[in-house]
Amino acid sequence: MTLAISVLDGDRLALARLLTQVENNHPDGLAALDQLYPYTGKAHLVGVTGAPGTGKSSLVNQLALYYRRRDQPPRVGVLAVDPSSPFSGGAILGDRVRMRDLAGDQGIFIRSMASRGSLGGLAAATSNLAQVLDAAGYEIIFIETVGAGQAEVDIARHAHTTLVVETPGFGDDIQAIKAGILEVADIIVLNKADRPGVENTERVLRGMLQLASVEQPVDYLGHHATGEEGQTLVKQKSSAWEIGIARTVATEGQGIGELAGMIDQHRQYLKASGVWQQRERQRIQAELDALIHANLLARWRKHISEERYQQALNSLVKREHSPIQVAKALLDGDEI
Amino acid sequence: MTLAISVLDGDRLALARLLTQVENNHPDGLAALDQLYPYTGKAHLVGVTGAPGTGKSSLVNQLALYYRRRDQPPRVGVLAVDPSSPFSGGAILGDRVRMRDLAGDQGIFIRSMASRGSLGGLAAATSNLAQVLDAAGYEIIFIETVGAGQAEVDIARHAHTTLVVETPGFGDDIQAIKAGILEVADIIVLNKADRPGVENTERVLRGMLQLASVEQPVDYLGHHATGEEGQTLVKQKSSAWEIGIARTVATEGQGIGELAGMIDQHRQYLKASGVWQQRERQRIQAELDALIHANLLARWRKHISEERYQQALNSLVKREHSPIQVAKALLDGDEI
Repeated sequence: MTLAISVLDGDRLALARLLTQVENNHPDGLAALDQLYPYTGKAHLVGVTGAPGTGKSSLVNQLALYYRRRDQPPRVGVLAVDPSSPFSGGAILGDRVRMRDLAGDQGIFIRSMASRGSLGGLAAATSNLAQVLDAAGYEIIFIETVGAGQAEVDIARHAHTTLVVETPGFGDDIQAIKAGILEVADIIVLNKADRPGVENTERVLRGMLQLASVEQPVDYLGHHATGEEGQTLVKQKSSAWEIGIARTVATEGQGIGELAGMIDQHRQYLKASGVWQQRERQRIQAELDALIHANLLARWRKHISEERYQQALNSLVKREHSPIQVAKALLDGDEI
Repeated sequence: MTLAISVLDGDRLALARLLTQVENNHPDGLAALDQLYPYTGKAHLVGVTGAPGTGKSSLVNQLALYYRRRDQPPRVGVLAVDPSSPFSGGAILGDRVRMRDLAGDQGIFIRSMASRGSLGGLAAATSNLAQVLDAAGYEIIFIETVGAGQAEVDIARHAHTTLVVETPGFGDDIQAIKAGILEVADIIVLNKADRPGVENTERVLRGMLQLASVEQPVDYLGHHATGEEGQTLVKQKSSAWEIGIARTVATEGQGIGELAGMIDQHRQYLKASGVWQQRERQRIQAELDALIHANLLARWRKHISEERYQQALNSLVKREHSPIQVAKALLDGDEI
């Protein structure tokens, strides 16, 4: 019996093994992914992102608990993506302690993965792992990313619903704005809402949301930081969904029910408006493009001798030609 | 006279215009980049990264001031990369106020750019702007990135010398570890060193450095967070350079001279050891590969009709085939 079939049968050990194979890009894992593909497309992918220290892990744990305690609870998957550090063992120890509450529940599956390699690699790997959990019957999958960089934004784009977690008085206001990945938010979670400054932070966030919803190429100072030719960077939001702000104190379980209600509402909105299908198509297209991309490069590399490639590189290092000239010559098969 | 020639002539207005063209991938900008390429390769690129709120901008400003006040001062360029936010105007206002100290100095050129588009795009755009400043005769170029995501790590990899900025007691220790991009650090700057907890933070950092220098696939808890097949994520450091920790209070100008001394030392080490040339070659190779990559895709797209592509996408959305199957069929020209 293949791993893929065992996974469809609900074998958790097989699931753990397959996730490892897929994460490592093992050929067997990729073949299994192929087999599982027809069973995917059902799960609600919920991205959770925000700066370090905002309490994302506690929040995800509490949400998982909340969903599992419902009548007819959905099966819950958690993918925790940890960025670029061999030291992330500490985070697991620190944040996952209260996962004891979830231990033994066969309706929950939690997986930590390290961020590694290129960005495309990370977003692709996360998407692949989510597909495995999806095929295995996990109906809501939380994808937790640490940080606010491009990698997190790209992962969030793969999710159906994206929560951006902020905390009161995290750095000064300007820093909160810098960290801003509000563009990708469907719901903003103001965690640690029992801390001082919560009113002020919520006011600032609401102000930023209001400005972002103005589809003009101006920022809140009325001009652009980018240089002479101001360009709009404001992602056009789907106007039908109004981004809400949920206050929570995850460590105390406060506000979790309300937040889950907002997540469910967003899902209903996505389904009713057709945005779900639209995002699905975008996600699949990105995946297809990435595969084509990688294949094109691999195929091309086979046609170029190492000697020719190194010779081209030498001419660049010596500044005999420019990169654009050399790339063109290599692709066209011209002399360098 | 072309912009490129004006830039080589020291025309600052032409430089500003060309940077905008290059940042926007304007064909004229890319052509100018081509023209300027023979004049590049002289500047010392210094990446400065770290979490929001660590005071990177102040640090870069103070370093720029310090270098400009030396005997025979080098020309100093500053590229400030701001992540993924239309709101970054605030950061400029907040952080750059003390740039008054630098205003009017013709030996300094400062440029803010917004992070936009894909990661590869950001790293490539930064590299292009640095090349323009390099050709224009700026001898030391600070590339300041906000955050600790993959984008910042990739930009840091393009620099000759990378400073990672930390602060005492930024979040708890576990959070500091999570944010860890120590793997790319050549020098760690412990800024705001007049704050409480500086001793403890330095001790933690030294411990992490010690563990990172052990080239074994273990983290500081002795196991891996990644799953069963523990893989080494520890980037092998060049053993001849010992990563130093510099304490600074940038807002007061404290520790800046010592830090500049370490930066100079690192440059000398790079030159003497041949690592400079090695990094240069890697950087150029990455640039060449990115160009080939982009060109391959553009060329391939021309050969595929929109109808065929959409039909392929439809079959994926309907789960009739898997992405791997569809990508292969598209590339091989097979029926779908």
